[in-house]
Amino acid sequence: MDFLAEEKNKYSPPAGLATKYRQEEVHRFIVDCMTSVATPTLQARALADLLVAADLRGHFTHGLNRLEMYVNDMVKKVCAGDATPVIIKESVSTALVDGKNGLGPVVGNFCMDLAIEKAKQTGVGWVCAKGSNHYGIAGWYAISASKQGLLGMSFTNTSSLVVPTRGKQALLGTNPIALAAPGEKGDDFVLDMATSVVSGGKVEVACMKGEGVPAGWALDRDGAPTTDAERALDGFLLPLGGVETHSGYKGFGLGMMVEIFCGILTGAPYGSNIRDWTRTDQPADLSQCFVAIDPSFFAPGFEGRMTDLMNHCRNMEPETPQKPVLVAGDPERLHLRKVEQEGGITYHINQINNLWKLAKYLGVTPLQTN
Amino acid sequence: MDFLAEEKNKYSPPAGLATKYRQEEVHRFIVDCMTSVATPTLQARALADLLVAADLRGHFTHGLNRLEMYVNDMVKKVCAGDATPVIIKESVSTALVDGKNGLGPVVGNFCMDLAIEKAKQTGVGWVCAKGSNHYGIAGWYAISASKQGLLGMSFTNTSSLVVPTRGKQALLGTNPIALAAPGEKGDDFVLDMATSVVSGGKVEVACMKGEGVPAGWALDRDGAPTTDAERALDGFLLPLGGVETHSGYKGFGLGMMVEIFCGILTGAPYGSNIRDWTRTDQPADLSQCFVAIDPSFFAPGFEGRMTDLMNHCRNMEPETPQKPVLVAGDPERLHLRKVEQEGGITYHINQINNLWKLAKYLGVTPLQTN
Repeated sequence: MDFLAEEKNKYSPPAGLATKYRQEEVHRFIVDCMTSVATPTLQARALADLLVAADLRGHFTHGLNRLEMYVNDMVKKVCAGDATPVIIKESVSTALVDGKNGLGPVVGNFCMDLAIEKAKQTGVGWVCAKGSNHYGIAGWYAISASKQGLLGMSFTNTSSLVVPTRGKQALLGTNPIALAAPGEKGDDFVLDMATSVVSGGKVEVACMKGEGVPAGWALDRDGAPTTDAERALDGFLLPLGGVETHSGYKGFGLGMMVEIFCGILTGAPYGSNIRDWTRTDQPADLSQCFVAIDPSFFAPGFEGRMTDLMNHCRNMEPETPQKPVLVAGDPERLHLRKVEQEGGITYHINQINNLWKLAKYLGVTPLQTN
Repeated sequence: MDFLAEEKNKYSPPAGLATKYRQEEVHRFIVDCMTSVATPTLQARALADLLVAADLRGHFTHGLNRLEMYVNDMVKKVCAGDATPVIIKESVSTALVDGKNGLGPVVGNFCMDLAIEKAKQTGVGWVCAKGSNHYGIAGWYAISASKQGLLGMSFTNTSSLVVPTRGKQALLGTNPIALAAPGEKGDDFVLDMATSVVSGGKVEVACMKGEGVPAGWALDRDGAPTTDAERALDGFLLPLGGVETHSGYKGFGLGMMVEIFCGILTGAPYGSNIRDWTRTDQPADLSQCFVAIDPSFFAPGFEGRMTDLMNHCRNMEPETPQKPVLVAGDPERLHLRKVEQEGGITYHINQINNLWKLAKYLGVTPLQTN
């Protein structure tokens, strides 16, 4: 991103820019930025839907914060913004898709829609894509199935960052697993987790705050355990579970499962063959997997049982009264409500200043409060 | 198990019983014990196959060690040893099965075979069963798909033992996830993991050895963190990841995923509605889920890529030279080789003495060395 960073830094934002913006305005801004670098509107809107949803759910590392990366991919022509995915191989319940190096959400939406369609016909749809790009929050695709009354799952491989138990170097990415399932009256279960003990974003945040990271999160560049956030950021993450006594090999096994569903099933790059996160001169060629299951092919009453189990969990006595027991998806639900109450999404001023510069460079109207 | 324990304790084993037995003899012994309590031979053999496989793979907690539980279930008539499963609902790619309270491996083999058959036709088979019993190592079913060149997955719900992050009481069982995938020349990837930080068996072992358990494994009966193995055994397990700072909620989310695939999809008991582990006066009514995926419906060359990724992992520089980096399934592979070299499976003498008493009580020939 050096070129873009340099170019946009020629512009100086005015002091005192607002930090809260309506979601429609954030969406408009993303679409304008992406179309300014030759992304067709349809594809730009798909990306904007996804990035706004991430911010609404409080996953700021995967929202507007990533816009510059997508712009950069278009400027450098490493991503084919106008591409549409094609089906290479298909059965009533499965498909292998070539994303044709299109934008992640374009490929992802196409595949999840296909999986949903198949699940409605046969009970289950299992679709794998190669030739894709960063597809944002894995939960987005799972939720899109859940909104139609189905179980949705989504997986993606990513650049190497996670060290196998007993190892010193990274082999797999943070390879997330997402599962969404519908409850009653719009309630839902949404698990969206990296298979590392934490995501890279949490280490970045610790770094920015000048704090350390807990033991068991990361190794330094030489493969030694570290609690120094800077060294951790320059190093590797441990798999979910952490060290061997705490079963880190299970987290690594889950990361392998994701890679099997992605790069191994599709025949695209896998493990450390995936381009480095910082390399932006070649296509990402990521693989993803999308699964939909129609609960009506099993026992009736799925949504009622789902809500009952979730409410049972939420109503359990907490260890600390101020910290209620939550179900996967509840923290995001709380954030959605906060944005609604506040009438907009609030960003860090540094991010807003940075986007103002990007807007000027691209010749796009900066984010506006009306 | 009180009745059985009391009855068999009337017998005293001779001193110096052998501790190593050929796998065929262990198999014979299990079949004899089960048929002596009115289990038809077909069903008894299915159970014996599974228990012997667990011991061969080094999962002694799930092998011959569990025989008394299965015998007890038959004696108390809480399990229908002669039952055969029936399909309630079916599509080309899915099925809902009623296990009719049959033995776990009888239900499990039936479902996995059905999933494999469907996967060969449509690329994916997704089969859920209710009315089942303890089905042994989850990996058994996954491996049976892998042996036919498919990806296999298996999940089961179990009695409550795992506490949600921030909670003080158990809501879910150790709900395991198994995935097996074939590599080249008989090599395979076999992930078979409880979604708790460790299985209950590891706490039992620490107890027997009079050792403590690491912080982050367990809570005591009152929901307070403990490193005392006795208190842990009487208490609850933390989900994979452990405490909140180390993302235990991810492990719990995975446990929920398993429950969704099992009790929630099948409409059978789920969460803390499942009978307590120690209650043996009512059917277990467990639910299980079996998935098979035929990689030939995706990109050709699956097994080659699988082996390449596994070997890459195995050949990584280890942190400690004596502890090589392993792939899921490697520890079991090493144990299988050990048994082969030693010409038999070696058990703890206490277990052998106990089984001798069981044999006498049942009127069955005790384990014999050739």
